Amino acid sequence: MERVLPFRWDEGEGVFWLLDQRRLPLEEVWVPVRTAKEMAEAIRAMVVRGAPAIGVSAAFGMVLAHLRGEDPVEADRLLRQSRPTAVNLFYALDRMRPHWGSAEGSLEEAKALWREVEETEGAISRHGARVLRGQVLTHCNTGPLATGGFGTALGAILEAHRQGRVTHVWVDETRPYLQGARLTAFELMKAGVPATLIADSMAGFLMAQGRVDAVIVGVDRMALNGDFANKIGTYALAVLARHHGIPFYAALPLSSVDPNLPTGEGIPIEERPPEEVLELKGVRLAPLGFPAYHPAFDLTPHRYLTGIVTEKGVLYPPFDEALRDALGLA
Amino acid sequence: MERVLPFRWDEGEGVFWLLDQRRLPLEEVWVPVRTAKEMAEAIRAMVVRGAPAIGVSAAFGMVLAHLRGEDPVEADRLLRQSRPTAVNLFYALDRMRPHWGSAEGSLEEAKALWREVEETEGAISRHGARVLRGQVLTHCNTGPLATGGFGTALGAILEAHRQGRVTHVWVDETRPYLQGARLTAFELMKAGVPATLIADSMAGFLMAQGRVDAVIVGVDRMALNGDFANKIGTYALAVLARHHGIPFYAALPLSSVDPNLPTGEGIPIEERPPEEVLELKGVRLAPLGFPAYHPAFDLTPHRYLTGIVTEKGVLYPPFDEALRDALGLA
Repeated sequence: MERVLPFRWDEGEGVFWLLDQRRLPLEEVWVPVRTAKEMAEAIRAMVVRGAPAIGVSAAFGMVLAHLRGEDPVEADRLLRQSRPTAVNLFYALDRMRPHWGSAEGSLEEAKALWREVEETEGAISRHGARVLRGQVLTHCNTGPLATGGFGTALGAILEAHRQGRVTHVWVDETRPYLQGARLTAFELMKAGVPATLIADSMAGFLMAQGRVDAVIVGVDRMALNGDFANKIGTYALAVLARHHGIPFYAALPLSSVDPNLPTGEGIPIEERPPEEVLELKGVRLAPLGFPAYHPAFDLTPHRYLTGIVTEKGVLYPPFDEALRDALGLA
Repeated sequence: MERVLPFRWDEGEGVFWLLDQRRLPLEEVWVPVRTAKEMAEAIRAMVVRGAPAIGVSAAFGMVLAHLRGEDPVEADRLLRQSRPTAVNLFYALDRMRPHWGSAEGSLEEAKALWREVEETEGAISRHGARVLRGQVLTHCNTGPLATGGFGTALGAILEAHRQGRVTHVWVDETRPYLQGARLTAFELMKAGVPATLIADSMAGFLMAQGRVDAVIVGVDRMALNGDFANKIGTYALAVLARHHGIPFYAALPLSSVDPNLPTGEGIPIEERPPEEVLELKGVRLAPLGFPAYHPAFDLTPHRYLTGIVTEKGVLYPPFDEALRDALGLA
């Protein structure tokens, strides 16, 4: 079972290689990154994407700055500007700051950060695998490719398949960006997991036919009561799963829970350019001048969740209590 | 308000012009059809699509056979083979058969058939308009372009907008074929109706935000109890509408009700080639060799319907009684 990682570190040469995600799934092109400046450019251009993977990449960007004699202040500034809304990016760069003076300390810290992602997601995958069985449906891309570790929702699916619990995966294509068709399909194929692509609108019909035993998705940001934002289409899946009596899980590291948000009402929903709905790889789908709406995420209230899969175990209702416990809050 | 018709008849020249639907919405190309053989080829190649529009086109194909001196037996055979599963096609050609001996009778019958489509859909549109208001969501393409008349679900929306009842339309793009993005968007733009394109997965989130006042869809085939098959994604919309307390209507001519089917269980669901999900206009979306599932339709049980819009009025539960009454069955 092959795990598709978004990067690899060549310690001998001091080169960080990125798998160019813009060209997947048809081409597997590895891009060498030798300086912090090149790393900032690669993150900006989305050669690497997925919040945890961006964090680890940025940390190694600071390692490269040391190796190539770039000014750490300038390197930090360039990396911070590469994707201005990525929380993991700032967290990783904050962790690197005390090591600006030391090439060795810097490398150790970057490796520690990567190892922590792997440990957290290894735990999420093991806990999540216990609640999955049979045919599982997922949305968007939440695998090793997005994180550099084992993945969250897809990590749990991969582990459950390894254990023989999950037999088949339904992959939502995830319009408009097609992360499911392009990336999740790619990861499942590499891992040798039986899987089938569907258009997002087909999920409900599959549920009605009794061909979905569980749904598991990732989380962009979760409030303290379990309400969460995730890729557009997640909410509709939650309603459909509830309607058909199918268990519905969200998987996330506890670092994605915002302790300052009591409910999901405070989570802003990012609207992205309409062109991303109107065009696909340069092909216009709708008449010129026709408007489109593109919320990149939606909000799913906690009442639709069967359980929340975290590195500390699977949490069950009441979620506000369970999340406060897991986070060690009063 | 412009109505987008799929064809026009030039009586002086004896030429039937088809709007090439394969090239919409970016190009409006009219193709002249001068013989039954050319018509059969145009139907086969999907220059014209939509069951009622195919029926009228085939009838005019027989008119062209007369004008150009083609053998009517051969013309009928070619047209019947053009789209082997289209019920309206066979119905139209059966209607033309008694007029094989007469150019004039043939033309009258083809025009009568077209006029009947217009009358039926005019009535559907008027009845449907009464139950719509505010912001309406629709799926796939059910407008004049698909029928040659006024349309069914989209006809009702256009009429309700003309009356000032409907203010805005949400257009599901309708993967995998994108009939919503390509054709419904085109028709609404031509008609000057405020409308916005969305990915199919966004409908549920719009409903949760209170931005959808009604959903109306077309029907491929309906059973006597009101269960119906329609474009894939219809069932999920029905469940989502029910969950959010939003009225959900199906619009159809009574000729689309199959009096031999007591329930929807007898309706076969056509599976189409996986390539139609895996590729879009020649662009591969998923890894080579990855499988896809492509049910072209799904089945929506009658219990999700608020009402059924027909040329005889809007029918309400119990639907089996109302449909038998409307069809004049015992």
